Amino acid sequence: MVGGGQLARMTQPAAVALGVRLKVLAAAPDESAAQVVNDPVIGDEKALADLRAFAAGCDVLTFDHEHVPPAWLEALEADGVLVRPGSAALLHAQDKGVMRSRLTALGVPCPRWSIVAGPDEVAAFGTDVVLKTTRGGYDGKGVWLVSADTPAEVVEEPFKAGVPVLAEERVDFRRELSAVVARSPHGQAVAYPVVESVQRDGICVEVVAPAPGLSPDLASEAQGLALTVAAALDVVGVLAVELFETTDGRLLVNELAMRPHNSGHWSIDGAVTSQFENHLRAVLDLPLGSPVARAPYAVMVNLLGGDLPEVYSTYRHIMARDPELKVHWYGKGVRPGRKVGHVTAYGADLESLRERAWHAADYIRGDIDE
Amino acid sequence: MVGGGQLARMTQPAAVALGVRLKVLAAAPDESAAQVVNDPVIGDEKALADLRAFAAGCDVLTFDHEHVPPAWLEALEADGVLVRPGSAALLHAQDKGVMRSRLTALGVPCPRWSIVAGPDEVAAFGTDVVLKTTRGGYDGKGVWLVSADTPAEVVEEPFKAGVPVLAEERVDFRRELSAVVARSPHGQAVAYPVVESVQRDGICVEVVAPAPGLSPDLASEAQGLALTVAAALDVVGVLAVELFETTDGRLLVNELAMRPHNSGHWSIDGAVTSQFENHLRAVLDLPLGSPVARAPYAVMVNLLGGDLPEVYSTYRHIMARDPELKVHWYGKGVRPGRKVGHVTAYGADLESLRERAWHAADYIRGDIDE
Repeated sequence: MVGGGQLARMTQPAAVALGVRLKVLAAAPDESAAQVVNDPVIGDEKALADLRAFAAGCDVLTFDHEHVPPAWLEALEADGVLVRPGSAALLHAQDKGVMRSRLTALGVPCPRWSIVAGPDEVAAFGTDVVLKTTRGGYDGKGVWLVSADTPAEVVEEPFKAGVPVLAEERVDFRRELSAVVARSPHGQAVAYPVVESVQRDGICVEVVAPAPGLSPDLASEAQGLALTVAAALDVVGVLAVELFETTDGRLLVNELAMRPHNSGHWSIDGAVTSQFENHLRAVLDLPLGSPVARAPYAVMVNLLGGDLPEVYSTYRHIMARDPELKVHWYGKGVRPGRKVGHVTAYGADLESLRERAWHAADYIRGDIDE
Repeated sequence: MVGGGQLARMTQPAAVALGVRLKVLAAAPDESAAQVVNDPVIGDEKALADLRAFAAGCDVLTFDHEHVPPAWLEALEADGVLVRPGSAALLHAQDKGVMRSRLTALGVPCPRWSIVAGPDEVAAFGTDVVLKTTRGGYDGKGVWLVSADTPAEVVEEPFKAGVPVLAEERVDFRRELSAVVARSPHGQAVAYPVVESVQRDGICVEVVAPAPGLSPDLASEAQGLALTVAAALDVVGVLAVELFETTDGRLLVNELAMRPHNSGHWSIDGAVTSQFENHLRAVLDLPLGSPVARAPYAVMVNLLGGDLPEVYSTYRHIMARDPELKVHWYGKGVRPGRKVGHVTAYGADLESLRERAWHAADYIRGDIDE
């Protein structure tokens, strides 16, 4: 797996169980995933030579993020490396313009969109607009919300990045959803329960599985969209489709990710097969595991760094207060707003689950002290 | 953790989630656990120098087996190493004579027993007798069943090992049970549901959690015995107490293990907190997690090597047939009768769970081919 972050880290337990060796290409020896695998390879995922050397020791190459340059992925495939998902599929997760074009061609519902060359075209496109660099954004970066009274210099910002800019109509949404599926090379696929995803400042903070009150029809439609996209793009591994549920009850696709996704972390403790295990099964061309939920609800809350310099001292309180809470720490240094872990509470009483999970998150951020 | 076998391997997923670094002292770089941890230390757990060097890099020392010589454990403790469980406790898992004496003194029910010096004392002890070397046995080794017509040279076998021999009356048991508990340094303890354990040729082959038809009184008694022993011996970490349920419905303690145990593997998929996670929490003096079962039944069946040279090719069949079966492979080379993994099926229909789990075990052993 290229990448040494928490997504690769959380893949290791599945690798341990499946009896497969997870090798990781990490930027530094103390990165989240490098801490937990045998013999992590330290290198630069943007350097083709490092990628080639890494791939030489692997049977299959997969990813913890979408930052490997498309040209390098194609070079690896030309070398004969088994890249899963493949470069053609991954391009749709790396380039939002390519993604929008393809989804529209497939008839998959999207917000109204257009590639825009500059502020004049933005104004012509609409009033409340989301501008995104077509490449390079994540966790809220590379995204600008502009409206009629946005200062001109702000509207010019996205165009300084040197990549094409995508404009999308700002969607009036009731909430955000995520449909996660896994697909194997020969087309078998499984769909996880559709979840509700709550963002703050562009970062996911909470996920509820399944999305409360989601009609069976809308849930089916969301899963169907994800399965359609996965098949059409020949995605191998996990595909996460982030969606808007509009105020008038329609679904629009927001973003795609082709790797285990924050909106699927609940599945480690809350589903029969975690998204990490199914990602491995899929890229290794093994039969997929059941995505069924094990409890009526699972609530995941991200643990974001706050004022506390470290978090280990908070473990006692969090664990003592709640012996059923599942904690996942990423072994990362604490920085304000940084994802340092997550907690999952599962059971039947949704409000209680949310209270428990949020208490832990607030405590480790230092916002509360009991 | 001293030891590189599958118990250490299965501890790694819990270490990943808890954000703690699991270091392993393994005999070889390709040992089960060495494959899945960062920077395994290769050395000899029977050599004090190797143990000291290993311990120097650890905050807490714990174990995947009971083979570290007691004198070395005491030396490490004298060095100031945090050894958990401690040497005094571990002696009761390493020396069956010490264990029997202590349990008897505690009023914990045991089979009738005696240390015997030779075949004459065996004959004086009884007719149907189990002979055990007091040190060094596991998975059926170091155990002899003798009766009136056992040839003399067989009765002499145990005495050639050079360690004291324990004689126990052969128990007429209905079945074997196991009570697994976890205890932390300040005395907090949790007790897992009491399980039924099925042995063949001295090796555990199947575990059913909870033991079907076990009366609440007997279950409480079994858990109580385990908690009593853990407290009296000051065990830190997991303690597994293997018990006989006699034909007249009494409990007798058979063996003790002070580490995660085969009878607790079901807890990875079947309990809120796995025995591995609770072992880590306990030895790190963190609050323990809930031991509650997540499904009405969980059935674990060991995967023992058979005629097939490797098992990876069996994955497809096993996983395709049963998307809800949880598979755990230990990364070990296949040898006939060797534990190479286990499968767990959980749900409500016990007979169905047993059929599913056994099918997988029979298939990988090569006993069936569809």
